[in-house]
Amino acid sequence: MLLHLCTWPEVEAYLQESQGIILPIGSTEQHGPTGLIGTDAICAEIIAKGVGEATQALVGPTINVGMALHHTAFPGSMSLRPSTLILVIRDYLVSLSRAGFRQFFFINGHGGNVATLKAAFSEVYEAIADLQIPNGDRVQCQVNNWYMCGSVYRHAKELYGDQEGSHATPSEVAVTQFVYPEAIKQAPLSPEVGHGHPIYSAVDFRRNYPDGRMGSNPALATPEHGKEFYDLAVTELVESYRKFIGSSL
Amino acid sequence: MLLHLCTWPEVEAYLQESQGIILPIGSTEQHGPTGLIGTDAICAEIIAKGVGEATQALVGPTINVGMALHHTAFPGSMSLRPSTLILVIRDYLVSLSRAGFRQFFFINGHGGNVATLKAAFSEVYEAIADLQIPNGDRVQCQVNNWYMCGSVYRHAKELYGDQEGSHATPSEVAVTQFVYPEAIKQAPLSPEVGHGHPIYSAVDFRRNYPDGRMGSNPALATPEHGKEFYDLAVTELVESYRKFIGSSL
Amino acid sequence: MLLHLCTWPEVEAYLQESQGIILPIGSTEQHGPTGLIGTDAICAEIIAKGVGEATQALVGPTINVGMALHHTAFPGSMSLRPSTLILVIRDYLVSLSRAGFRQFFFINGHGGNVATLKAAFSEVYEAIADLQIPNGDRVQCQVNNWYMCGSVYRHAKELYGDQEGSHATPSEVAVTQFVYPEAIKQAPLSPEVGHGHPIYSAVDFRRNYPDGRMGSNPALATPEHGKEFYDLAVTELVESYRKFIGSSL
Amino acid sequence: MLLHLCTWPEVEAYLQESQGIILPIGSTEQHGPTGLIGTDAICAEIIAKGVGEATQALVGPTINVGMALHHTAFPGSMSLRPSTLILVIRDYLVSLSRAGFRQFFFINGHGGNVATLKAAFSEVYEAIADLQIPNGDRVQCQVNNWYMCGSVYRHAKELYGDQEGSHATPSEVAVTQFVYPEAIKQAPLSPEVGHGHPIYSAVDFRRNYPDGRMGSNPALATPEHGKEFYDLAVTELVESYRKFIGSSL
Amino acid sequence: MLLHLCTWPEVEAYLQESQGIILPIGSTEQHGPTGLIGTDAICAEIIAKGVGEATQALVGPTINVGMALHHTAFPGSMSLRPSTLILVIRDYLVSLSRAGFRQFFFINGHGGNVATLKAAFSEVYEAIADLQIPNGDRVQCQVNNWYMCGSVYRHAKELYGDQEGSHATPSEVAVTQFVYPEAIKQAPLSPEVGHGHPIYSAVDFRRNYPDGRMGSNPALATPEHGKEFYDLAVTELVESYRKFIGSSL
Amino acid sequence: MLLHLCTWPEVEAYLQESQGIILPIGSTEQHGPTGLIGTDAICAEIIAKGVGEATQALVGPTINVGMALHHTAFPGSMSLRPSTLILVIRDYLVSLSRAGFRQFFFINGHGGNVATLKAAFSEVYEAIADLQIPNGDRVQCQVNNWYMCGSVYRHAKELYGDQEGSHATPSEVAVTQFVYPEAIKQAPLSPEVGHGHPIYSAVDFRRNYPDGRMGSNPALATPEHGKEFYDLAVTELVESYRKFIGSSL
Repeated sequence: MLLHLCTWPEVEAYLQESQGIILPIGSTEQHGPTGLIGTDAICAEIIAKGVGEATQALVGPTINVGMALHHTAFPGSMSLRPSTLILVIRDYLVSLSRAGFRQFFFINGHGGNVATLKAAFSEVYEAIADLQIPNGDRVQCQVNNWYMCGSVYRHAKELYGDQEGSHATPSEVAVTQFVYPEAIKQAPLSPEVGHGHPIYSAVDFRRNYPDGRMGSNPALATPEHGKEFYDLAVTELVESYRKFIGSSL
Repeated sequence: MLLHLCTWPEVEAYLQESQGIILPIGSTEQHGPTGLIGTDAICAEIIAKGVGEATQALVGPTINVGMALHHTAFPGSMSLRPSTLILVIRDYLVSLSRAGFRQFFFINGHGGNVATLKAAFSEVYEAIADLQIPNGDRVQCQVNNWYMCGSVYRHAKELYGDQEGSHATPSEVAVTQFVYPEAIKQAPLSPEVGHGHPIYSAVDFRRNYPDGRMGSNPALATPEHGKEFYDLAVTELVESYRKFIGSSL
Repeated sequence: MLLHLCTWPEVEAYLQESQGIILPIGSTEQHGPTGLIGTDAICAEIIAKGVGEATQALVGPTINVGMALHHTAFPGSMSLRPSTLILVIRDYLVSLSRAGFRQFFFINGHGGNVATLKAAFSEVYEAIADLQIPNGDRVQCQVNNWYMCGSVYRHAKELYGDQEGSHATPSEVAVTQFVYPEAIKQAPLSPEVGHGHPIYSAVDFRRNYPDGRMGSNPALATPEHGKEFYDLAVTELVESYRKFIGSSL
Repeated sequence: MLLHLCTWPEVEAYLQESQGIILPIGSTEQHGPTGLIGTDAICAEIIAKGVGEATQALVGPTINVGMALHHTAFPGSMSLRPSTLILVIRDYLVSLSRAGFRQFFFINGHGGNVATLKAAFSEVYEAIADLQIPNGDRVQCQVNNWYMCGSVYRHAKELYGDQEGSHATPSEVAVTQFVYPEAIKQAPLSPEVGHGHPIYSAVDFRRNYPDGRMGSNPALATPEHGKEFYDLAVTELVESYRKFIGSSL
Repeated sequence: MLLHLCTWPEVEAYLQESQGIILPIGSTEQHGPTGLIGTDAICAEIIAKGVGEATQALVGPTINVGMALHHTAFPGSMSLRPSTLILVIRDYLVSLSRAGFRQFFFINGHGGNVATLKAAFSEVYEAIADLQIPNGDRVQCQVNNWYMCGSVYRHAKELYGDQEGSHATPSEVAVTQFVYPEAIKQAPLSPEVGHGHPIYSAVDFRRNYPDGRMGSNPALATPEHGKEFYDLAVTELVESYRKFIGSSL
Repeated sequence: MLLHLCTWPEVEAYLQESQGIILPIGSTEQHGPTGLIGTDAICAEIIAKGVGEATQALVGPTINVGMALHHTAFPGSMSLRPSTLILVIRDYLVSLSRAGFRQFFFINGHGGNVATLKAAFSEVYEAIADLQIPNGDRVQCQVNNWYMCGSVYRHAKELYGDQEGSHATPSEVAVTQFVYPEAIKQAPLSPEVGHGHPIYSAVDFRRNYPDGRMGSNPALATPEHGKEFYDLAVTELVESYRKFIGSSL
């Protein structure tokens, strides 16, 4: 159930049954010569939608632009600064908490978001206490990286081994191919690909990863793989969501 | 051309031809008993996509949550504070300006965003000067409210007269019906509807507009009307975009 | 009644009768070769004082420096960034709301302030809710641009036609001549004057408007005109203030 | 020479001769049962104007609302938070520094502003370095409290002894009587007056200083005294300004 | 070599040889009935000092108060909000980067700091780019949790098994006993101890962990163990530091 | 009693007896060719510890990095911006106030901190009111500069006369020699030393004070003097602390 396709009376009714909501968060950043700039948002959104359908949980609007400062030396990448993203998360969750939501289940498509999201959660708990929102101490936030689901991770290793890499991976590219088969891109990929460098500044990142890939071979991706990853992630996150919601009982 | 469906080399190539980008901005807020919470984002996104297709312009990711604090007494509404939205716009445009974009054409679906957007533009020009981005003084931002297009406005008046109202309007509801016919909602609408009250605090807003509508009768909306509004808005904004882009020559 | 010329017990007594206050806001920015840098503040202040006298309303201190970033390529111009001005408005209104004021009637002398002021109002309503100020949901803010008063606007058109322009206008210059006849400036004005360019960065503004005027001919201004504009604005804003105050009954 | 009564070409010419500017800063806060709420702004403004006339220095717009949080338990008091005032000072001085001003001579009428002003100066030097304003390392700020001028201080002690007190003092009240003889207020003053309490929260302040005075007897003030204080302050600050300006040679 | 015990010419000389610096960061927070509130700062500081001695690296001042909002329902706990800690890290690293430091090796004693530190690093890289610090794109930050050193972790498991827990652990308590044998505390520990609960708000944390421990039995700690952990951590982090410094060659 | 060496139950018990806490604040900044970069933190910390021992008062963690922007043109200096330091103080005191602390006695070792600290206190009182912390209006903050203690000041004048200067003074250097005799530094000192220049930007500071000293001759310092200054400061501040604590009765 997408929040965007609900009316407010429907949300009011929903809150009688559940105080949980799924919030997809992605990124708008380069994904190598063939990966879509929207990859992380596309993956998070479709999987969140799948989890929402299976659990009857409400799914909020996708945060399309996340923390991707290290990718901004490649054109088309967009990023919030961490301090801005913290404020965005704070404003989202304060709005929703005032209405009665208490359990925020983020489905995340981008590793660069994780640290800032976790920092934001701490900031939010404090803000909600400061605002004296009733039962605000019951607010719970959790970040779930779909690509870190055990089943997803294992399947990627099986299919791609070391060529999965860690950015512009065939697994995430596959999911976007499943969602947008009309947007499958072809481009020559250099046989050598940067890998193993820690992430520092944007300029340094591009120096180390000249075409944007981090140790990956996205040419291995297929839409069929994408469907498999999607199914695995949804199945596993449905379980996670149920456990998360149940934990507050 | 959706930025999310491009690769970074495609964006690099695009920038050789154009420094313009379309940025849809909506809101996540109550739209009365039958209007979708995502109405403003849905409308802005679909129209932006249409303008992008017609002009070959790049269309960035939709800002789904805008400035809707006055709607937050209704469950499901979400809002950034104006100060947060200013930072979001700043971060978006700094990222894009560093890559070479210079002309930012916002297609907006929510009246409550306008003041903050305009304030943000001023903040952005200054930030870009502070950062000494080359040719940063050439950055241009423009906000275009699709519902204020002359042709749209006139057509709404023709179809609905005074029942167009100013929030949860049949015209915007119609566009969402055109986009999501499967999500057309039915609910009884009181014959009387609040209208004419200025907008102050969220609590005051709900006091004056108890079901969320502002003088509107969304029951008049049809998907066919939605198609008409969509076509009118796209046609008119294509013209506006071309004029905007041309203005920097 | 100027707040600056009251004692606190007088304010305490006033609050028993009214919770309204008039707040003048101007700007400190270039107004062409002959216009005073303080034009917008001078006009807002004198008109606010006039409205206060006629209505027995309290008039707060003038905000002398507003949002004029686009004028800062001309020496003598000063500006707050929008984000700073929002904080200033917030702090002003929180101070006054805690004391019992509920209705804030801004008399504004500068178009560049409007968007930020409106954004600030939204931020203020939220802040006051956050702070749980008693009856804070009754706070009402309104911006009134004296130069947009119907009678003023019409009179300017009658007197000056197209030469009224939109910045360093003869009407606003006339008001300053009425207030400060000793500071009427003479300088040659180029027959051609920039007009019709949208406002972007400060550098771009000066490129398009090399002497600072926007389509105006301030040489048409006279102190007598200034008196007429003053009278028209005061008369019309007295009415607006009464209506505004009455609206909360 | 008041900045507000200059044109931008006049400022441009002035900057060829001097990079100094006088900035009056006051406060809007209770001054006991008979002192004007605008006392600190009125005094700073009139004295700054006098110094400007004697030195041909430019005088900027008065900062009417300063840091007076501890007075806000009395109605009519307004305050910026220190963090906001720092931003205001930053924005003022960045605007002026970009235009070429380098020496900022604040004439201050309120003790509560001093700490925040000094903190702001440090913030400004850093901001100007960050922005790489040419010769920005030559920027100099100085705060001058008119009431701390040796001659003023001594004269107040001669006239009033201990009854000068430290807030709502007869000396500052006298200056306002000199400026606004039409606004001399009468009210009974309790023979006992709070004194010697450190300043903490607003509530605590009012507990310790129930009528707002701090050890003072403003009933001793006369407009004639006000003239004397004005003359002393102007004379002494003229000297200070000349020394300040000369120090950069 | 402690920065605090150096002179500035010594630092100037050091920078000719190395651009690396070790920065200890801890926390000030409850550590159960017997753990010291300064545990995390004490451990980080002593280990950083040891690594500095072995590598001749400069060791900066300890950040004593970190991100511990979830502990603040226990008296004596202090915390920065994540947004504040980000600013602190930014200011530290901007100061040091301007002087020539490029490699920032944080030795961290508190799990709650990690997310905010990583977010801060991203913010810092961007800030340094914004400030155009020469070679700023070479800045590198790394967080090293001493308690996550493989050798430390294994030794703790050997000594304590499951009773190591995850907060107020015997291993960290042991290190403080080694450093401050005079401050070894005794108090009865309940046989049952909270464990396995995710961390949300401060109130929720205390509800789940009533005496502050998370699954740990700090009664097992001894000063001798502390010496062992200290030696293991220093040895391993010396290696990490050398590798980190070498990585920029 | 150092907070860092307490457990939370000990703090809980302490709060039954006292709501006071001593907070040392120093700086990390150049102190001339022979003074330690940590001088201000070292002095504040040791004296705070001494006062805490004599009064049984709790002593919080030392703020090692303060407001020293004007020293940052010398390598090894670190600084928070004033706006950041205000947030740090706010977060510290909000944490402690929530736990029940009400009296915050800062022992300060650096003149550059004073203005920002005082500004921060005002910000804190307001924040605590905003957060509606029970009895928050009883919060009291006081800054005590150990080097301004009458007895210390006089002794420095006796021992060093004018050569005490105002930065990198023999008195503060002496205290660090007393604490760290192993870190007494030798370096040639130019016979001439800058003095009398006001403090503006960092670059300007170094121009005027090329070796970092301000009118001082730290070669006069001895560890024995340091012991004397330490004793004088502790004795005097013990008295101040008792008076401060007693003031709230």
